[in-house]
Amino acid sequence: MAGKERKLSELAEMVGGEFNGKLDPLIHGVEDLERAGSGQLAFVADRKGGQRITASRAAAFIVPRDLPVGDQPVIRVDDPALAMARVQQYFAQEPFIAAGIHPTAVIGRECKIPAAVSIAAGVIVGERVVLGERVVLHAGVVVGDDTIIGDDTMLWANVTVYPKCRIGSRVIIHSGAVIGSDGFGYVYDRRAGRHVKRIHQGIVEIGDDVEIGANTCVDRGTFGATRIGKGTKIDNLVQVAHNDEIGENCLLIGQSGLAGSVTLGNGVVLAGQAAVKDHIRIGDGAMVAAKAGVIADVPPGGIVSGMPAISHKQWLKASIIFAELPGLVRELKQLAKRVDELENLEGHDDSGR
Amino acid sequence: MAGKERKLSELAEMVGGEFNGKLDPLIHGVEDLERAGSGQLAFVADRKGGQRITASRAAAFIVPRDLPVGDQPVIRVDDPALAMARVQQYFAQEPFIAAGIHPTAVIGRECKIPAAVSIAAGVIVGERVVLGERVVLHAGVVVGDDTIIGDDTMLWANVTVYPKCRIGSRVIIHSGAVIGSDGFGYVYDRRAGRHVKRIHQGIVEIGDDVEIGANTCVDRGTFGATRIGKGTKIDNLVQVAHNDEIGENCLLIGQSGLAGSVTLGNGVVLAGQAAVKDHIRIGDGAMVAAKAGVIADVPPGGIVSGMPAISHKQWLKASIIFAELPGLVRELKQLAKRVDELENLEGHDDSGR
Amino acid sequence: MAGKERKLSELAEMVGGEFNGKLDPLIHGVEDLERAGSGQLAFVADRKGGQRITASRAAAFIVPRDLPVGDQPVIRVDDPALAMARVQQYFAQEPFIAAGIHPTAVIGRECKIPAAVSIAAGVIVGERVVLGERVVLHAGVVVGDDTIIGDDTMLWANVTVYPKCRIGSRVIIHSGAVIGSDGFGYVYDRRAGRHVKRIHQGIVEIGDDVEIGANTCVDRGTFGATRIGKGTKIDNLVQVAHNDEIGENCLLIGQSGLAGSVTLGNGVVLAGQAAVKDHIRIGDGAMVAAKAGVIADVPPGGIVSGMPAISHKQWLKASIIFAELPGLVRELKQLAKRVDELENLEGHDDSGR
Repeated sequence: MAGKERKLSELAEMVGGEFNGKLDPLIHGVEDLERAGSGQLAFVADRKGGQRITASRAAAFIVPRDLPVGDQPVIRVDDPALAMARVQQYFAQEPFIAAGIHPTAVIGRECKIPAAVSIAAGVIVGERVVLGERVVLHAGVVVGDDTIIGDDTMLWANVTVYPKCRIGSRVIIHSGAVIGSDGFGYVYDRRAGRHVKRIHQGIVEIGDDVEIGANTCVDRGTFGATRIGKGTKIDNLVQVAHNDEIGENCLLIGQSGLAGSVTLGNGVVLAGQAAVKDHIRIGDGAMVAAKAGVIADVPPGGIVSGMPAISHKQWLKASIIFAELPGLVRELKQLAKRVDELENLEGHDDSGR
Repeated sequence: MAGKERKLSELAEMVGGEFNGKLDPLIHGVEDLERAGSGQLAFVADRKGGQRITASRAAAFIVPRDLPVGDQPVIRVDDPALAMARVQQYFAQEPFIAAGIHPTAVIGRECKIPAAVSIAAGVIVGERVVLGERVVLHAGVVVGDDTIIGDDTMLWANVTVYPKCRIGSRVIIHSGAVIGSDGFGYVYDRRAGRHVKRIHQGIVEIGDDVEIGANTCVDRGTFGATRIGKGTKIDNLVQVAHNDEIGENCLLIGQSGLAGSVTLGNGVVLAGQAAVKDHIRIGDGAMVAAKAGVIADVPPGGIVSGMPAISHKQWLKASIIFAELPGLVRELKQLAKRVDELENLEGHDDSGR
Repeated sequence: MAGKERKLSELAEMVGGEFNGKLDPLIHGVEDLERAGSGQLAFVADRKGGQRITASRAAAFIVPRDLPVGDQPVIRVDDPALAMARVQQYFAQEPFIAAGIHPTAVIGRECKIPAAVSIAAGVIVGERVVLGERVVLHAGVVVGDDTIIGDDTMLWANVTVYPKCRIGSRVIIHSGAVIGSDGFGYVYDRRAGRHVKRIHQGIVEIGDDVEIGANTCVDRGTFGATRIGKGTKIDNLVQVAHNDEIGENCLLIGQSGLAGSVTLGNGVVLAGQAAVKDHIRIGDGAMVAAKAGVIADVPPGGIVSGMPAISHKQWLKASIIFAELPGLVRELKQLAKRVDELENLEGHDDSGR
C-alpha cells in the first residue's frame, strides 16, 4: 500500500462522487466496515448497510447517493462497490519496478524481451518468445517457444504456457494455470483396438484484460485457436477445451467447464461447476446457473438451470415439486382409491383393464 | 520404513490394545490382508472380515475386541482402523534429517530460517519469510513474501504460496496446490462496459494439522482472511474461495467447492463434487452429500443432498420416484381415463371445463 | 512440421486409402476445411460434409469412400477422421533430438539415465530414478525418488511425480498433473477428537500409451497400487483416487472424478464432471454420461445418467417429465376436482377420509 495518502475530497473527485462531511480526513487505505480504523475508508453497498456505519470505526465511508448519514465524512456515489474497487486499485497500485531478469532464470534463444520486465528466479522462457513492456513473470513460470505476451501482463508463480500461445496486454494468470495443453481428442482405431491421438496444432489466444484463475486449464485448438475475448474473467479450476470461442467480458466461475468447440457470446456468466456440451452456442448476456449442464443452445439473455439445463424459472418450479414427489405419489394413490370406490358404486367391471 | 522392528506385544501397548497369541512375532511393517507376508501386520476392520484372516499370510493381525480367531497372534482393539493407522505412522515416521538449503534454492532477503529445515532444489522463497523448525519444502515450491510457516510443516513439490499467508504447524500441502491466489471478485462498470477487479488485500490462514490435496486452490480474503481451522483435511482439486471460514476437523472431499464467504462449522463433511453458494452457513457436524449444491443454510448435524440441496432422506425418496416418473405419468393418464368414463356414465357435460 | 512433403498418392498408401484425382499434389501439412490452403490436406468426416469441399481452398481432401466429389484430388478411406489423425501424426512427428541434460537441471544420486534423453532447464530428478530411452522432461518437472519411467515418455512442464511411481512407455503427461500424491484417508479418533492420517505406502502404476491431462491428480494406493491401464486417456482436472484400477483404453473426460478403490473395466467412458463412488465396479465398455453420479455397479456395456445414476434411457424420459412437473401437478389437481364432483353427485360422505 506504499504509504499513499489522499484527502477524502480528492478521492471523491477521483471516483466522480460527492464529498460530504464536516471533516476532510486524510485516507491511507481501505478496509471492510468491521476492520476499518483510523485513516481508513470503508463502504456500504446499499441502503440496508446504513446502520452498520454507526458501529464502524472507519475514518470515512463510500455510500449510496441517497443514504441518510449523520456527520460522518462520506463520498456519495451511484455505485459504492464500483467506487470502492477503484479507490482500492488506486491504493494498491505501485509504480512498476523493473527487477530485470533474475540470474537463475533461463531465457531461450532469439527472444525479444524489453529492459522493463521482471522475470523472477527459476523462470524458464523458451525460444523466440516475445514479451511486452512491464511483463512480470513470477517464480517458476514456464513459457513455451514462440509465445507472445502483451504489455503489463502478469503470470503468477508456476504458471505454464505451452508453445505458440498469444496472450494480450494487462492479462493476469494465477498460479498453476496451464495455457495451451493439448485438447482431448482421439480417434478410435477399431482394427488396432486403440485410441489414436489427434495432434493439436492450433494455439490459444487470450485477449487484453483477461484474468485466469489458479489451476485453470485452457487447451489449444485442434486447428485454429481456442479464444478468450478481452475482459473475460475466469475463476479457479475451470476447464476451457480445444477450439472454444469465449466472447468479451464473460465470467466463468470456479470449477465450471466447457467441452470442445463451444461458443460463448459476450457477457455470458457460467456459475460454479456449470458445464457446457461440445459445439453448443450460448448467446450474449446469457447465464448458466451453478451446476447446470447445458446440452442445447441458449439464446441471448437466456437463464438456464439443471441437468439437462432448462429455463431457470421452469427449473425452479420443477425443483420445488421434485422435493414433494413423495406427497404427489400419495395424492395420486388416494385419488386412485377414490376412483376405485366410485367405480364400485357404479358396479364397474374392472376385468377388462 | 527404515528397518524398524517391534514385537507384536510392544505394538499392542503402543495402541492401547490387548496382545493375544502363542507367538509374539517381530513386526517390521504393515500391509493389507492380501499382500501381507512374513513380519508384516495386517488388520481386519470389522467382524465380517474375520474369515479373510485364515487366507492371509500376515504374521499378525489387528482385530476387533470380540472377533473369534484361532491361534493367530493378534492385537485386540476397539477400533482396528485407528490402531492400524497409528502403527503405520509409527513405521513410516523417520527421524527428521535437516538437509539444509539446496544450493539451487533461492532465498529472499530478511527471511528467518532455522538450521533444521530441508529446502530442496529449485525452491524459491520470497522476502521476510519465516519458517518454523523442521519445515520441508520439496523441489520447485514457491513461497511468497512475508509468509509465515509453522513447525514440522511439509510442502510437496511445486506448491505455490502467495505473499502474506500464514500456515500452521504440522500442515501438509500436496503438489500443485495454490494458497493465497486472488478471490474472484469484480464490479461491473456499466458506463465503461467492463469488469473492474476488486483488489484482494486479505490473506489466508491455515491452522495446525491441516492437510491440503494436490491442485487444490485456496483464495485469499478480499479483506481479512480466508481461514481453514485446525485439523481440517482437504482433498484434491477443491476450491476454497475468498473469505471462507472453515471450522476444525472438517473433511472436504475431491472436487468439492465453496463460493465466497461461506462458513463451515466444526466437523463438517463435504462429499465429492459438492458445492456451497456464497454466504451460506453450515452447522457443526453437518454433511453435504456428493454432488449436492447447497443454496440455503444447513443446521448443525444436518444431512443434505441434491441440487438444490434438501434433506437427504427427502432427497432419497424423491430420487427413487424421479426414476419412476414415466410410470407415474402413465398411472395419471389411466386414472384420467377412468374418470372420463365415470363422467360419461353420469352424463357429465365437459363443455364447462 | 519440419518441412516434410509427400505426394497425395503416397499419403493414401500410408493410411490404406484409395487415391483419386487428375493431379497428385505435393502435401506439406494438414488443416481444417476453412483454413486449409495451397499444399494442405483437409478432411470431411461424413457424407454431410461434402458440400463444404467446394468452398475449401485445400489442395486435397480425405473423404469417405462413397462421397461423390468432382475432380478434386482425394484419398478415399473408411474412416476419414482416423486417416486424418494418422497423416497429422506423420507431419507432426519429428526425429527425437537428444538435448541431453540442461545444466540447471538437478539429478539425484544413483539414477539410470540413458544418453538419449531431453531434460530441460529447472527439472529436478530425485534419487535412484530410472528413465527410458528418449524420455523428455520439460522445464520445471519434478520426479520423486525411485520412480521408473519408460521409453519415449514425455512429461510437460511443471508435472510432479511423487516417489516410487511406475510410468510406462509412450506416456504423455500434461503440465500441472500430479502423480502419486497421498490418498484422502483418515481414521477419526473420537477420544482425541481429531482425524488420524492413514499413511499411503502404495504406488501409482501407469500403463503404456496412457495420456494424462493438465492439472489432473492421480493418488497413490493406501497399500498396493493405483493403476491406469494401457491406452487409457485422461483429460484435464480429473481426480483419480487411491487404489482405483482403471482398465485399458478408457476415456475419462474433463473434471470427472473417481473416489477410492473404484474398478473400471476396459473401454469405459466417463463424460465430463461425472463421478463414481468408492468401491464401485464399472464393466467393460460402459458409459457414464456427463455429470452423472454412479453409486451402484454398472454392468458391461451399460449407459447411465443422472444423480444417482440410472439407465440413460430411463433418465432421459424422467428428465423430460421433470421439466413438465408443474403441468403434472396441475393435471392431478384438476383430476382431483373432477373426482370431488363425481363424489358429490354420488352423495358421497367424505368425513371418513
